[in-house]
Amino acid sequence: MTSYEVRPVARVESPLQDRTAAPRQGDEGAPPARVVFAPEFHPAAADLRPGDRLVLLTWLHEADREVQAVHPRSDPARPREGVFSTRSPDRPNPIGLHTVTVTAAGNGTLTVTGLEAIDGTPVLDVKPVLGEVAAR
Amino acid sequence: MTSYEVRPVARVESPLQDRTAAPRQGDEGAPPARVVFAPEFHPAAADLRPGDRLVLLTWLHEADREVQAVHPRSDPARPREGVFSTRSPDRPNPIGLHTVTVTAAGNGTLTVTGLEAIDGTPVLDVKPVLGEVAAR
Repeated sequence: MTSYEVRPVARVESPLQDRTAAPRQGDEGAPPARVVFAPEFHPAAADLRPGDRLVLLTWLHEADREVQAVHPRSDPARPREGVFSTRSPDRPNPIGLHTVTVTAAGNGTLTVTGLEAIDGTPVLDVKPVLGEVAAR
Repeated sequence: MTSYEVRPVARVESPLQDRTAAPRQGDEGAPPARVVFAPEFHPAAADLRPGDRLVLLTWLHEADREVQAVHPRSDPARPREGVFSTRSPDRPNPIGLHTVTVTAAGNGTLTVTGLEAIDGTPVLDVKPVLGEVAAR
């Protein structure tokens, strides 16, 4: 099948410096972090505001793309499962999915809570969390 | 910034044949569809089961990657917004996010409900919807 090229639109700035220090999910103790957009993507980010609930898609650049089965949550007592049944960062296309809340926005930069990605993680896309159908 | 190569792991089979026929979101009237994994990724998909709630990440291959602002839901009465504040398929990295339910699984193929992607859409990743922290 054809492959495609993704290009980061922003980068994470976080006190989390490596995978071993990062919580497994953003609601498991992530510190506040910043999302710094590349200047050419400022127009796409121009309407993001404090209070917005967003989905960030990141590129988990330290992942092992050859891994297809893992022990869930790295627990050897749990049987190995196909990675599509897990949230392991090691997977064929290591795209991270994070739900965050914006606490400050301006100058092409967001401050967010709930982001467990490590410092330097590339951001591929940002989307609003969807509300009910009637409010879209 | 460095760019990265994504490689589809599966493809959507759906009666939806073009963007104009597709609902805007999967909970707005999508028909049942199939997700057919490439043989080399069958191990990663081996533990997916009927009843699983999954997030599918797709590549919206007909999107315009140069677009940075749109009228939300293509409604000209709504002011243009930066695409990161919208779910427009036209965006710098056109990765689609879909929450689906598996109704059948086997032979490297899933049948799912709630998928509004058109026939032939490449699938980049599959993840379980996360439950509460204690159940992970």
